[in-house]
Amino acid sequence: MAIETFKATSKLVAGLQVDNFVRNFSTRMDEPKSLGGTDTGMNPVEALLTALGSCQVIVAGAFAKSQGIDLQDFWVELEGDLDPDGFLKGVAGVRMGFQEVRFTPHIKTSSSPEQVKKFMEFVKSRCPVGDVMLNGTKIVPADAVIE
Amino acid sequence: MAIETFKATSKLVAGLQVDNFVRNFSTRMDEPKSLGGTDTGMNPVEALLTALGSCQVIVAGAFAKSQGIDLQDFWVELEGDLDPDGFLKGVAGVRMGFQEVRFTPHIKTSSSPEQVKKFMEFVKSRCPVGDVMLNGTKIVPADAVIE
Repeated sequence: MAIETFKATSKLVAGLQVDNFVRNFSTRMDEPKSLGGTDTGMNPVEALLTALGSCQVIVAGAFAKSQGIDLQDFWVELEGDLDPDGFLKGVAGVRMGFQEVRFTPHIKTSSSPEQVKKFMEFVKSRCPVGDVMLNGTKIVPADAVIE
Repeated sequence: MAIETFKATSKLVAGLQVDNFVRNFSTRMDEPKSLGGTDTGMNPVEALLTALGSCQVIVAGAFAKSQGIDLQDFWVELEGDLDPDGFLKGVAGVRMGFQEVRFTPHIKTSSSPEQVKKFMEFVKSRCPVGDVMLNGTKIVPADAVIE
């Protein structure tokens, strides 16, 4: 299969509100009042957690049958630790992003614990968002276009 | 400031549809028909691009004034290249996630091109999602809970 290019646009609305556009879909992001926003949507690091969680859920849903797993129900709880002193104040030695991300999968199944364990390893190994968040990726910025 | 822990839950709905929950917000994700879904929402790698884009937009909106930038309008276009042979087929040597992510900021401003250039460097350096996507982070999986 050829390389596929995915696209998105993120636009400032007012204050710290952002509207994101992907094909015919859109999402609103913002910050809670404690971080200077007006709390009209999840914030970008929360959205990052949902990208990871939904990626794992979709990989699980897509491959359960071919991996011989009975997937009656599936969800993932995620947590990420971040020190706001990094991005708010630029304190030296504090990273901007998550210092650690944890996740706990929940599965309703008749498959054995051993089968589930093996399946979760498979899911982890096939998740594109997990790969980027774990290993990093090349990010190429263009010069800003002054409109 | 103390470390803050952000949380999310991602739950399989039906097919490859996922509902994500963060505080009192939710988003739907899915895959396009070409990738096996029913196209009821953006997919996780597109959502990952919106997390990066909205992070840059929020950092720009939050710091424009203190950085002396006239920010009349601001948006970011993003693209990410991914070879679906990785996560769909597990082809050896093909990574699961984005091989490259590109972004182009657009700004409406009376500030000079030099000021804008310096400001964009600042935005890049303060963006938590950009830090995670560029440098990776520690991801700690718990054993699956069998419900």
